[in-house]
Amino acid sequence: MSSGANATTIDVPETRAEAKGKAPLIAAPIVATTKATPHPNAGWKKGLAIFDFLLRLAAIAATLAAATTMGTTDETLPFFTQFFQFQASFDDLPAFMFFVVATAIASGYLALSLPFSLVSIFRPHAQGIRLLLIISDTVMLALTTAGAASATAIVYLAHNGDSSANWIAICQQFTDFCQSVSGAVVASFIAVVIFMLLVMMSALALRKH
Amino acid sequence: MSSGANATTIDVPETRAEAKGKAPLIAAPIVATTKATPHPNAGWKKGLAIFDFLLRLAAIAATLAAATTMGTTDETLPFFTQFFQFQASFDDLPAFMFFVVATAIASGYLALSLPFSLVSIFRPHAQGIRLLLIISDTVMLALTTAGAASATAIVYLAHNGDSSANWIAICQQFTDFCQSVSGAVVASFIAVVIFMLLVMMSALALRKH
Repeated sequence: MSSGANATTIDVPETRAEAKGKAPLIAAPIVATTKATPHPNAGWKKGLAIFDFLLRLAAIAATLAAATTMGTTDETLPFFTQFFQFQASFDDLPAFMFFVVATAIASGYLALSLPFSLVSIFRPHAQGIRLLLIISDTVMLALTTAGAASATAIVYLAHNGDSSANWIAICQQFTDFCQSVSGAVVASFIAVVIFMLLVMMSALALRKH
Repeated sequence: MSSGANATTIDVPETRAEAKGKAPLIAAPIVATTKATPHPNAGWKKGLAIFDFLLRLAAIAATLAAATTMGTTDETLPFFTQFFQFQASFDDLPAFMFFVVATAIASGYLALSLPFSLVSIFRPHAQGIRLLLIISDTVMLALTTAGAASATAIVYLAHNGDSSANWIAICQQFTDFCQSVSGAVVASFIAVVIFMLLVMMSALALRKH
């Protein structure tokens, strides 16, 4: 790791507060020195913040694709009996409903977090914003993972069925339905991976200041 | 938040490195001052680390309970036909198998992480350990959530069935099976909440040093 480079970091407001509290007489020259010297790892932090912003854009694309693909999935089979038509829609299955709601919330959250991510590009040492982002990212990671995993369990069942519980595989009839649902699940797992990366990167950025 | 108290934090090794790099002539008195004064927020950090350790113990209990409850679930109905007996076991359903594996892995990881958590009680400012813990906790949060959510989707189906996919509710027959499976799912969600808390607390602990 780059802890060697980080060891020379100086956080200006903190140094000032610390110096005021402890050694007021030598406070002024220290502050002057730190202000004159550019941050040694500001570039590294800025790179991390820019990557964070780009990852958020990718995650918006992934969650939006997942939510809309799942939310518009609807297949009516071309044959029907006297009493009912065979139709499969995402809102027949509560797990798919939850998936749409969870990925839509994640997508909205990501859009709202973009300005905060932008601020941390220009102020790489603002710890409050980083902390806010890492906490809400953790919650959203859990939400997106829950949506993706529950939908996966149902998609697996739709593909393979389960003989012991007497649940039949419906994908033999509803091929298009199963295909788009599987696509949505894959997109949501991409979003899960991105959320994990976002949390880890925020942790790295919080490490030194 | 306690940012007012944190603003006076001084990290001894970093202050020394920083002082050496920037202003060697006034480095010695500063280090002497900081060494004489105890850490203002060392107690707060230590409390956080102790709470982290206790939460890990609770999470071990929750994941162990979830894994063993699910892993020993097996119900044979008291009636049978000529050809087969009605039996429900967790390993009939892949989602339940995944649940057992995921919670068992989380449980093992938590046991392995205890020594690291202990070290960070005695050395609240060791950032490398915190960073290691937050990154692996994030991965485990995703794993445990995935296991819990996929099992929930199947448990919901077992309780309610799904008319459009023609999947019947099996809980009317397998009442004991469904009860213990539901208990395991609840325990795993407790573990998920604890993992989220662990990640957030590590983020807080990384914030200032």
